[in-house]
Amino acid sequence: MRFHLIARDGAARAGVIETERGVVHTPLFMPVGTNATVKAITPEELRKIGAELILCNTYHLYLRPGEDVIREVGGLHRFTGWCGPILTDSGGFQVYSLSRLRKVTDDGVEFRSHIDGSLHFLTPEKAIQIQHSLGADIIMTFDECPPYGVSYQETLRAVKLTTEWARRCKRTHGDSGQALFGIIQGGFFEDLRRRSASEIVEIGFDGYATGGLSVGEPKPLLHEMIHFTADLLPSERPRYLMGIGDLMDVMEAVEAGYDMFDCVMPTRNARNGTLFTSEGRVSIQRAEYRSDPSPVDPNCSCYTCRHFTKAYLRHLYLSGEILGMVLNTIHNLSFYFNFFQQMREAIINRRFAGFRQQWQVILQSNFHR
Amino acid sequence: MRFHLIARDGAARAGVIETERGVVHTPLFMPVGTNATVKAITPEELRKIGAELILCNTYHLYLRPGEDVIREVGGLHRFTGWCGPILTDSGGFQVYSLSRLRKVTDDGVEFRSHIDGSLHFLTPEKAIQIQHSLGADIIMTFDECPPYGVSYQETLRAVKLTTEWARRCKRTHGDSGQALFGIIQGGFFEDLRRRSASEIVEIGFDGYATGGLSVGEPKPLLHEMIHFTADLLPSERPRYLMGIGDLMDVMEAVEAGYDMFDCVMPTRNARNGTLFTSEGRVSIQRAEYRSDPSPVDPNCSCYTCRHFTKAYLRHLYLSGEILGMVLNTIHNLSFYFNFFQQMREAIINRRFAGFRQQWQVILQSNFHR
Repeated sequence: MRFHLIARDGAARAGVIETERGVVHTPLFMPVGTNATVKAITPEELRKIGAELILCNTYHLYLRPGEDVIREVGGLHRFTGWCGPILTDSGGFQVYSLSRLRKVTDDGVEFRSHIDGSLHFLTPEKAIQIQHSLGADIIMTFDECPPYGVSYQETLRAVKLTTEWARRCKRTHGDSGQALFGIIQGGFFEDLRRRSASEIVEIGFDGYATGGLSVGEPKPLLHEMIHFTADLLPSERPRYLMGIGDLMDVMEAVEAGYDMFDCVMPTRNARNGTLFTSEGRVSIQRAEYRSDPSPVDPNCSCYTCRHFTKAYLRHLYLSGEILGMVLNTIHNLSFYFNFFQQMREAIINRRFAGFRQQWQVILQSNFHR
Repeated sequence: MRFHLIARDGAARAGVIETERGVVHTPLFMPVGTNATVKAITPEELRKIGAELILCNTYHLYLRPGEDVIREVGGLHRFTGWCGPILTDSGGFQVYSLSRLRKVTDDGVEFRSHIDGSLHFLTPEKAIQIQHSLGADIIMTFDECPPYGVSYQETLRAVKLTTEWARRCKRTHGDSGQALFGIIQGGFFEDLRRRSASEIVEIGFDGYATGGLSVGEPKPLLHEMIHFTADLLPSERPRYLMGIGDLMDVMEAVEAGYDMFDCVMPTRNARNGTLFTSEGRVSIQRAEYRSDPSPVDPNCSCYTCRHFTKAYLRHLYLSGEILGMVLNTIHNLSFYFNFFQQMREAIINRRFAGFRQQWQVILQSNFHR
């Protein structure tokens, strides 16, 4: 994997990540394919609307179907039918957010599956071995992610563990062809964030991610930490802000110098009938759209907006029809990819501030859920 | 609408139906788009895999979103994004099979909605007016469909009502540009079927449909009635066997001289994980497919079979993923359209008997649900 910056506008950056499976452009939005599928959309359609790299979840795939299945079939690309680059996260965050009866020791994490309650033990070594079996282009270290509100001492413990685990991950990784990204933790304590970043950077990785944000903290604190952490990460490597996808937060983070983002927001909202548009959010179930012959977004040229009316999408949503989720997903992801592409052009043309100002108004207006 | 026969092989026929929205080829399989969507597939994909005409349900669309919505948006084609021909059924069968507290009078049927329990009254006039609002290319008369096992007297009453209602439908229809098909009833009494057919044919319609079959009767009786009824319908008009889609039954009916079919079988089975293949049915959840790297059907060139393994489809099914339903639907419908196309070619080449023999073996083998 190689990373080049091609433009800067203040701290905001536009770059290129070269992988063996193709080039991707930053700032990059990575749609989330939890169970080895970006929900409700085919890989063909994903490619068409501009997806460049998808994210899959090690935690989920380890539990079902099992990494052995994916390895036997020929790896995640063959399994999913997605030929472009893939990133897998290590499972650290899902163990924290989804599993039951989680017990953290120095060695790793014991937890019960959220699917069937079965008992599992994940270690840094195992997280890397699983990710080797899956065969993604970019893989992540196994980290310990504390929730918002834990004490300094607990956060310090998580930082130490995350560093130690990062070392063990790198050792296990060896010289695999897959790129390995390190994750920094440190909660909402600046000195711990600084410590974590310096330790992780010292180990040395192909890219760096900030974890442990968007875990319940207030927005101003999130934005503060976004700026603070971005400056701790090396400029010549991709900077990945994990799990953040609200576009207001994304613009904050791009301004701070982050390059990569993932979030279920566009896909989950699509399934719940909330659509992102150039005029603000649209809650498609609203009675006002009953006979509305207009497309969801007059400025969008996606398949959904070219062929279908709000009245139809409302009908599909109220009828619980799968096609509604499919069409909404196509639109919301198209909107995200267009947004990121425009943001990238704005950076290249040194008008990111104007871009941000314009979109801040839109994203805050016409907001009827 | 115009209908031409272009080949015969025994009583089996291959023909062409010309509509203002395009030409369709018979024997024709019409996928069912109950709620103005063929479940889990986009119109674009439907067109690609060979769909020529889709069916929508008047009963469902009258209840939700309401025919006024569809008329205001510009009709069913604009609403659904399906530009090819559409057929709507009259609602007679759904009133019988889905609604609650159904009360039949000479004037029409009073029933309660299966969605919200609201009270409705459908008459032949109203069924036609609704279908005019929907704007399908082919519409159906409003009939009275008795279940299997009712007495001769009750069936006779349904036949008389169906004839009287057919007259009222035709009167209401006037000289609309939409084609109007008549439906014959008569249960499992040959003289009543003969009487119904002769009365309906005397009124005169653009095509003729046989209703009231596949309502719980044993297969041999179904097949007997298929043959008996086909001979009662004029040869120069399309013959439509309503609601029959099991391919064994379809071959029986094509042999008898039927031209048009509709059924939820390929789409419903797809969502339940049952896939039709050239080697028999595949129940995709079976453990034997856990790491199976082969496509569902080695002889199929649909998007699903070209890109995805049985292992992946099994994983999607077990994970309850929408993409599984989408990919299974693409495959099952592709299989149906291929089957119908091959059947048509067999008729044109006068080898329908061989086609039928070959497929009877396949359809009965490898059947593991």
